[in-house]
Amino acid sequence: MEKPKRMGNFLFQPQAKKQRSDLQQWRLERQHRLPAAISAFNGNAVTVVKGEETCVTDHSEVVSRFFSDVHAPLLDIIPTEERSQPVADKKVGVVFCGRQAPGCHDFVCGLVDMMPPNFGNKVFGFVGGTHGFLDKQAVELTPEICAAFRGTGGLDMLGRTVDRINSKDESEKAKQTCQELDLDGLVLVGGARTSTDAAYLAEYFRQQKVKTAVVGVPCGIEGSMINEFVEASLGFDSNAKAMAQLVGNTAIDGSSARKYYYFLKLMDGSTTGGKVPTSHVALEVALETKPNLLLLTEEVDDHRNSLRELVSDIADVIAARAADGKNFGTILVAEGLLAAIPEFRTLISELETLPMPSTVEKVLPELTTWSAALFNSLPEFIQKQLLLERQSNAALQLSQLETERLMAWLVEDELKQRKKKGSFKGSFSPVCQFLGYQARCSMPSDFDSDYGYALGGTASILACRGCNGYMAVVADLAQPVERWQVGGVPFTAMLQVPPTIPKESFRPRPGIFPRKVDLDAAAFRSWKEVRDACARDELYENPGPIQLSGPSAGKVTKTIATRFSYLHELQMLQKHLEALSSRCRPGCELRQVKVACQSLATLNSILDELAEHPAASPLLERPMK
Amino acid sequence: MEKPKRMGNFLFQPQAKKQRSDLQQWRLERQHRLPAAISAFNGNAVTVVKGEETCVTDHSEVVSRFFSDVHAPLLDIIPTEERSQPVADKKVGVVFCGRQAPGCHDFVCGLVDMMPPNFGNKVFGFVGGTHGFLDKQAVELTPEICAAFRGTGGLDMLGRTVDRINSKDESEKAKQTCQELDLDGLVLVGGARTSTDAAYLAEYFRQQKVKTAVVGVPCGIEGSMINEFVEASLGFDSNAKAMAQLVGNTAIDGSSARKYYYFLKLMDGSTTGGKVPTSHVALEVALETKPNLLLLTEEVDDHRNSLRELVSDIADVIAARAADGKNFGTILVAEGLLAAIPEFRTLISELETLPMPSTVEKVLPELTTWSAALFNSLPEFIQKQLLLERQSNAALQLSQLETERLMAWLVEDELKQRKKKGSFKGSFSPVCQFLGYQARCSMPSDFDSDYGYALGGTASILACRGCNGYMAVVADLAQPVERWQVGGVPFTAMLQVPPTIPKESFRPRPGIFPRKVDLDAAAFRSWKEVRDACARDELYENPGPIQLSGPSAGKVTKTIATRFSYLHELQMLQKHLEALSSRCRPGCELRQVKVACQSLATLNSILDELAEHPAASPLLERPMK
Repeated sequence: MEKPKRMGNFLFQPQAKKQRSDLQQWRLERQHRLPAAISAFNGNAVTVVKGEETCVTDHSEVVSRFFSDVHAPLLDIIPTEERSQPVADKKVGVVFCGRQAPGCHDFVCGLVDMMPPNFGNKVFGFVGGTHGFLDKQAVELTPEICAAFRGTGGLDMLGRTVDRINSKDESEKAKQTCQELDLDGLVLVGGARTSTDAAYLAEYFRQQKVKTAVVGVPCGIEGSMINEFVEASLGFDSNAKAMAQLVGNTAIDGSSARKYYYFLKLMDGSTTGGKVPTSHVALEVALETKPNLLLLTEEVDDHRNSLRELVSDIADVIAARAADGKNFGTILVAEGLLAAIPEFRTLISELETLPMPSTVEKVLPELTTWSAALFNSLPEFIQKQLLLERQSNAALQLSQLETERLMAWLVEDELKQRKKKGSFKGSFSPVCQFLGYQARCSMPSDFDSDYGYALGGTASILACRGCNGYMAVVADLAQPVERWQVGGVPFTAMLQVPPTIPKESFRPRPGIFPRKVDLDAAAFRSWKEVRDACARDELYENPGPIQLSGPSAGKVTKTIATRFSYLHELQMLQKHLEALSSRCRPGCELRQVKVACQSLATLNSILDELAEHPAASPLLERPMK
Repeated sequence: MEKPKRMGNFLFQPQAKKQRSDLQQWRLERQHRLPAAISAFNGNAVTVVKGEETCVTDHSEVVSRFFSDVHAPLLDIIPTEERSQPVADKKVGVVFCGRQAPGCHDFVCGLVDMMPPNFGNKVFGFVGGTHGFLDKQAVELTPEICAAFRGTGGLDMLGRTVDRINSKDESEKAKQTCQELDLDGLVLVGGARTSTDAAYLAEYFRQQKVKTAVVGVPCGIEGSMINEFVEASLGFDSNAKAMAQLVGNTAIDGSSARKYYYFLKLMDGSTTGGKVPTSHVALEVALETKPNLLLLTEEVDDHRNSLRELVSDIADVIAARAADGKNFGTILVAEGLLAAIPEFRTLISELETLPMPSTVEKVLPELTTWSAALFNSLPEFIQKQLLLERQSNAALQLSQLETERLMAWLVEDELKQRKKKGSFKGSFSPVCQFLGYQARCSMPSDFDSDYGYALGGTASILACRGCNGYMAVVADLAQPVERWQVGGVPFTAMLQVPPTIPKESFRPRPGIFPRKVDLDAAAFRSWKEVRDACARDELYENPGPIQLSGPSAGKVTKTIATRFSYLHELQMLQKHLEALSSRCRPGCELRQVKVACQSLATLNSILDELAEHPAASPLLERPMK
């Protein structure tokens, strides 16, 4: 038995997990359906095929200043006819950069399984996340170690610290680690910030002629590391299901005793400390459980709701329910909500310029009149939370704010006013909860377990073939596992340039950004259809606990199931173009050429028009079942 | 479709649940394994057999003052040879008196299924719990209504209000409801308090010559409505499993990022507002998940720990872990902990004599010096919580106290002191959570679903046969469902007389009391064996979500699985006695008579001796697997 190994603040102790739970053991015996391309690789016959060249949609001149190649091709991994040699004598390292997400252990299993150690391959895990990586805290991951963690949640196999490798110094340290271990590939697992860092690190390695190929893996419970190429973020499915179970239980609790209003804040995108909070989890959970209200960051942002309006809207629903004799309910609050409220956002950005921790007395004179008034109107607990010590990047951590308690407090205040005026006659007894830590290390769902494993295999192939600057991608996720498509997409194709802020002097830097909930897409539209009925009545549904067998085991979250496969659509488009071009060759009928030519001209001018307003084009989706 | 029906503060709206979830539907198709005695009843052949007469162990003279019959026999329900007529023209009412517990809906299904409506039977559900019952808010429960709720958690089928029917006025109202509806039986579902009320109501009905038979059903997530006859409380199994999943997830979260101490308070017996908090849930969850520390009410009580000692013990564990480079961990806090700490209990009882809500200034002069000193040393948030408005019985609700936050606050303070002295060099960052509302309405486990259904069948038989003053009991629960034994036990056999408090003038009233965790029993002993290792290392286990299929679906919580069947043991004893008596008849060998006589004499004097110290006799149990 291997001894625990001290590595910085972390201990690597694989023997702690020697005993598998019955459930884990049972699942392992029934699992391992791999997508065709990857399962072919088990027979050592797979090839990486270059597809279309990618392009940078907008601001390509800005992106080109940072990246030497902005036209890298898409890569498809497909089975070949002949049997080839397995990967041999390759070394790959893996770092958990992002936060805890179910499926990450299965990801490592997929990676290690693709690189059999008896052919001289080595997979190094960095203990202690990014810090451990920069400090060269590597352990060799064997199939035995993987077996103990397969099918479990959390990141306790290797641990994590921060998701940030972007200073010059850090890039240099990363280079040294990779060179010292003679790595052929480096796999970084995380969300949008990790992907951005991976893109820059890949570029740095290219310039410095480091042989290590940097490969990214889309991961994160908040489900926002998605775009045209990436259909789902690893861990979202399990987390949303685990959260939905808790919300479903709580809603039914409420309608049993009929005396509490549950304000449930759901851990979401804003825990990544970013300025771009997303609410994919809250929306998915609402679709699964039908609460009375859903306060969605993106919607509040879209409506430019003030805090007062929002509180008044909530109070209206509560008053209407009270008039119906119902003084109870369940309200979902997306974690990043406050950042979407204009006056609150202003207050936050003013506070972020001040040194923290601080006190009310010190802070008030520094604020603008409006912000000071807002700050003064807030309850003491939120004032205190706004004045806490900041993280290194000076950004306020939205997850530290008890948004759910603030909303309940403000609503209570509003209802008291209405009671005085006689427009509210009910009672209001709020119970506030923050759901997150109990769910984000859940045992992975079948989907995440399969998805993680497939991503692991994909990442290992990309890393071993030297595909520097690529994201491992598995597409067609709404299809059965056997039909999933695997490949790689260059980071550069996912880069966006943030808008320049007039007053700021620094040049905006391209990055890969979290994708917000699309208010025009099927998922949100189907919530809009039911929400009035949900507000009025108790239409609560409880999807129950995550199952490893039975009908619910195979179900994918609605958010993922209703997304079209962009890559699949692109392929279809390519086929249509080829058919057209081979049909309209010299010798074909003039009438056909005329019709085709006119149609194409019209189509191109339509697309020109659309390109002017990229937000107007609906996101790809399939109808909600 | 039936219209929603307004009943007091409640709406009865069965159509809200018309749509079954896939999971529920799937489970229903595979379920309904009934114990032999009950399944025989489906073929209408079951008989209720009188067993041994019961006795009241101690203070029988006190009990006799309140109850006219203290020797009612045990009842066995067993299949008969011949086919008898089904139950016909009977009317039974059911009330959810206790709090939300998984399995209660299945209980109602069992009850209704045993009383086919085509034979003129009627089952009335009282909407709005006890209040609804006293207000005669009855609806007829049909098999169709039951079908929609089968296999779901919560009590939203009928709702609940309070668990209290014990004033003269309430008993009289209960009598009126039962007579108006011409009920043959009344089934009260709840914990120890409900059972006590049921016992007194049954006696009242006997005296008043009301024909309605009062039947109790042991239920409650805290699992304390257990005794020699009742092996498990309905809902405990599911609740403990759902909690264990959340604690397992959280512990793994902690060991992934390695920076937080999670203080998790688990909803437990004290939410019943009683003075007898129990920690069965916390113990079971600890056995399933192996946290670093478990603060068990019963153990703290047994050790007479002061608050300072307890805090110091926790700080020792944290300091030892910090010395090992580990500044993270998971600590379970039983909800009723504070009531077990002597000086805190004194403070609470002093506060309970004062009018509430109140303020610090008003309260301090009224307290004794010691209590005032303790109160002053507490953080502001706990002071506020101690001065909140009380429930009708003036008792402080322990669930309103943020015990987990208090412990974290005190430990933080202690560690700061140690840091100054140089005896602690680590960091301490606590995260506090209260787990309860997310779990207690969980979808029932297979065990609770089966147990609830079997209890429903049993209760219906007892009610229809006029067995007034009986608790429905299902025994041999650690066996497969087919081998479970069903029957009834008179409430009087479960009554205990609380010790007289010297200064108090009122006469102690017999009651059925929650059973505490037995510190000498297998469950706690097996925690003692592992707890040192758990404190030091991360031996966290995650049992995963409740499964409806696969190996973990059939597993019963350790607390239930390690309890012996008392009734089974009693039967065996009876058989031995019979064998002895038939062997030692006139004509048998003198040597045999002598040996038997001497042995029995010795045994009886041993039992006399044991009876002096009833606490010394170990509770029945089987070895832990």
